[in-house]
Amino acid sequence: MSNPSNILVLGAGLVGQAMALDMHRNGHRVVVADRDPQALEGLKNRGLDLRETDFESPRLDDLLSRADLVIGAAPGALGYRLMERVIDAGRNLVDISFCPEDFMDLDRKARDRGLCVVADMGVAPGMCNALLGFHDAHMEVESYRCLVGGLPFRREWPLEYKSSWSPMDCLEEYIRPARFRVDGEDVVREALSDQERVDCGPAGILEAWNSDGLRSLLSSFPHIPNLVEKTLRYPGTVDYLRVLRTLGYFSTDPVEVGPQSIRPIDLTAALLFPRFRLEPGEGEFTYMMVEIRGREKGQPAGYRYSLYDEYHRESDTLSMARCTGYTCTGVASMVLDGTLKETGVLPPERVATTQDRIDILLNYLADRGVRYAKEAI
Amino acid sequence: MSNPSNILVLGAGLVGQAMALDMHRNGHRVVVADRDPQALEGLKNRGLDLRETDFESPRLDDLLSRADLVIGAAPGALGYRLMERVIDAGRNLVDISFCPEDFMDLDRKARDRGLCVVADMGVAPGMCNALLGFHDAHMEVESYRCLVGGLPFRREWPLEYKSSWSPMDCLEEYIRPARFRVDGEDVVREALSDQERVDCGPAGILEAWNSDGLRSLLSSFPHIPNLVEKTLRYPGTVDYLRVLRTLGYFSTDPVEVGPQSIRPIDLTAALLFPRFRLEPGEGEFTYMMVEIRGREKGQPAGYRYSLYDEYHRESDTLSMARCTGYTCTGVASMVLDGTLKETGVLPPERVATTQDRIDILLNYLADRGVRYAKEAI
Repeated sequence: MSNPSNILVLGAGLVGQAMALDMHRNGHRVVVADRDPQALEGLKNRGLDLRETDFESPRLDDLLSRADLVIGAAPGALGYRLMERVIDAGRNLVDISFCPEDFMDLDRKARDRGLCVVADMGVAPGMCNALLGFHDAHMEVESYRCLVGGLPFRREWPLEYKSSWSPMDCLEEYIRPARFRVDGEDVVREALSDQERVDCGPAGILEAWNSDGLRSLLSSFPHIPNLVEKTLRYPGTVDYLRVLRTLGYFSTDPVEVGPQSIRPIDLTAALLFPRFRLEPGEGEFTYMMVEIRGREKGQPAGYRYSLYDEYHRESDTLSMARCTGYTCTGVASMVLDGTLKETGVLPPERVATTQDRIDILLNYLADRGVRYAKEAI
Repeated sequence: MSNPSNILVLGAGLVGQAMALDMHRNGHRVVVADRDPQALEGLKNRGLDLRETDFESPRLDDLLSRADLVIGAAPGALGYRLMERVIDAGRNLVDISFCPEDFMDLDRKARDRGLCVVADMGVAPGMCNALLGFHDAHMEVESYRCLVGGLPFRREWPLEYKSSWSPMDCLEEYIRPARFRVDGEDVVREALSDQERVDCGPAGILEAWNSDGLRSLLSSFPHIPNLVEKTLRYPGTVDYLRVLRTLGYFSTDPVEVGPQSIRPIDLTAALLFPRFRLEPGEGEFTYMMVEIRGREKGQPAGYRYSLYDEYHRESDTLSMARCTGYTCTGVASMVLDGTLKETGVLPPERVATTQDRIDILLNYLADRGVRYAKEAI
């Protein structure tokens, strides 16, 4: 437990809420800012300082000036701009906005100001990167493979999916070509490709397919010849996404419909987003499997980390919010207590390269019920 | 062969074209009217009199006044209005527009004018009705089941379907609830329901599902306790149609998309119609299975008619145009030569209730290579 600090959480979505409450329980003074009063509503009477604030407004500067550390939980489209603004305000930041821009472009600016800025610090990206970063520092990694998904217990045909994060970011995952690395070659395959069914233990048999989730790993580890990330969904549902994409419903090119011109993706968003919403109290789970193989002390070695976590009914906290948010608050705590001393922008693979640090992070998560099983493979 | 008559074909779509050429080969003088000069283009230099005419224009009256018999091949949405206009002009008509309205409402008018008007005279509806009409006149029918589909040889994922007829009428088939009769009860099930895989002989294993194709049969045969029609498609593709419907892409209720309001079905039409188009020279086939069971001369009796017909490459005539069009021209020939003497509006189940007439019609089709195999079951 660090001394009480002033924490500013940007974004009161489901993950932002879980993080604000966690930092409050950690003993900090927490301000939460969001432009949507409805998003803030769920945090009332919980000891938090709630501020209805548009992130574009100058009022945000005032909030930033009083924060010791900022936690970024805005949608991806706003992420980069907000990161820059926090750095300009001279504040440390741990962020899970997963912005499309390259956050390393802000490294020089953060370094010049002596700030510690951690980006992409969720579960995936986030914890899986940290695990690879740790092993890369202690062995010669030859392959990294991450399978990850968050799914509702109730399977509602045909998509059998609900999203606790930005739904447009979720549609993006079905569209953006997936970059990964095979035998030393960087390759690009279309999203939703290379379907395979995988035994996911307590999560059952799920279907994995290529998504563009490696982000900073490709540039951080040029020496690792195999890097793959895939998304997990209930079997069969990826076919339906492929049908929609093939028929043009994900297209961003306008189509003439009578006198109107419309981007099919926009109608798709209008039709699907209401279906992505979890019902109040609806249970969901997160499953992640990270496999790292290579050579350690001259011998072949391999490790598999498995995470299975469920919706926490007592506190009404989604598993995706727990797994994503508590990783972020864990690292925020490491910044606050001085465990993490680096300056500049850190991708998540750089936060826990020592045994001490990865243990601190894994223990922080385990204390909150988010447990990674580790086995040799 | 009847004496040369003056035939007016309304509509120069793929089926209209095949009918115009067939009636011309039969020795008649044939006028073809369509508002689309491109549709008429394919009939140039074939001995036909081609007229670019909007069906709403008074010029159509002039064409009607010179016709001995009219063949209607307009899209369904125009069908009823055109039937009425032909009757008002005092002309006999055989029609395949498959209009959504109840064509029997025009019966009195046609009867008063002493006209013979045959509606729905294609393959299904059409020939399957005629077969049931024949057997109903000679046995106590207990069940009628018709499975029918027209499919391209080349299976293009995900829909694996091309349409030679009006594409909006085709989308309708995926939406309109299916009416049929089970054990004497009229039932309504949603379109695309009750999927089953069926051995379709030369057409392979296809998937059948409920579509609203019985039309006049339900009212014409109140005494037959079981009446079912299903559409056939390549297996698996109906699931994709159900996905689209379930997600709202077939909805006719406007959806707000930014500042615009759009009916999802209209975007779906814009996206799918280009995919429904057969390539020039692309082969397709028609398969229909009609099963009629009951009691004949006091004994259990059953008959199965099977039709399998392919694209005719030499004359570049689609199988769907052959099977639909030649049934219509066969009945038109029966009207012209006096075989069919009834007045009023006749549904297709009333055109061939005698052995003579059904033989004439089956032979007319067989002469053109459209062959029904009949077996006892």
